[in-house]
Amino acid sequence: MTAYTATVTVRLKHGVLDPEAETTQRALERLEFDLEDLRSADQFEIDLDAVDADAAADRAGEMAERLLANPTIHDYEVDVAHR
Amino acid sequence: MTAYTATVTVRLKHGVLDPEAETTQRALERLEFDLEDLRSADQFEIDLDAVDADAAADRAGEMAERLLANPTIHDYEVDVAHR
Repeated sequence: MTAYTATVTVRLKHGVLDPEAETTQRALERLEFDLEDLRSADQFEIDLDAVDADAAADRAGEMAERLLANPTIHDYEVDVAHR
Repeated sequence: MTAYTATVTVRLKHGVLDPEAETTQRALERLEFDLEDLRSADQFEIDLDAVDADAAADRAGEMAERLLANPTIHDYEVDVAHR
């Protein structure tokens, strides 16, 4: 077993409204920052032990499917690195 | 001016309690997932135009300092990529 950190990034699907990101963007613009667009995402860094990187990625992907992401509105991405 | 996407990742500083991450970890364990630790972070993907990547990173860092992160409890990290 090897120690990995799987990073699961959960984003709203394209077209799903994100009022929090819009509010953040407007607040930055009120502070006179110049930006074109802002999107927000949730990131989960999961430390786990697995036989190899593929097994770690599979397990993290299953966590996303079952709990971390809502497939109706979210896309997710999994990255695995040695810990 | 070149089009960049700056990704600002905002994490709780080491030692700051994260009850949301603890709850998520326990929920995954109740679903019989095997994991050592789970940390959560907020990610902001900011599209902006800047003269070069350093200028884009500086502007995104200032956004983090002024609004996206709370320096008392958060650390942040800025990554810049071409859009």
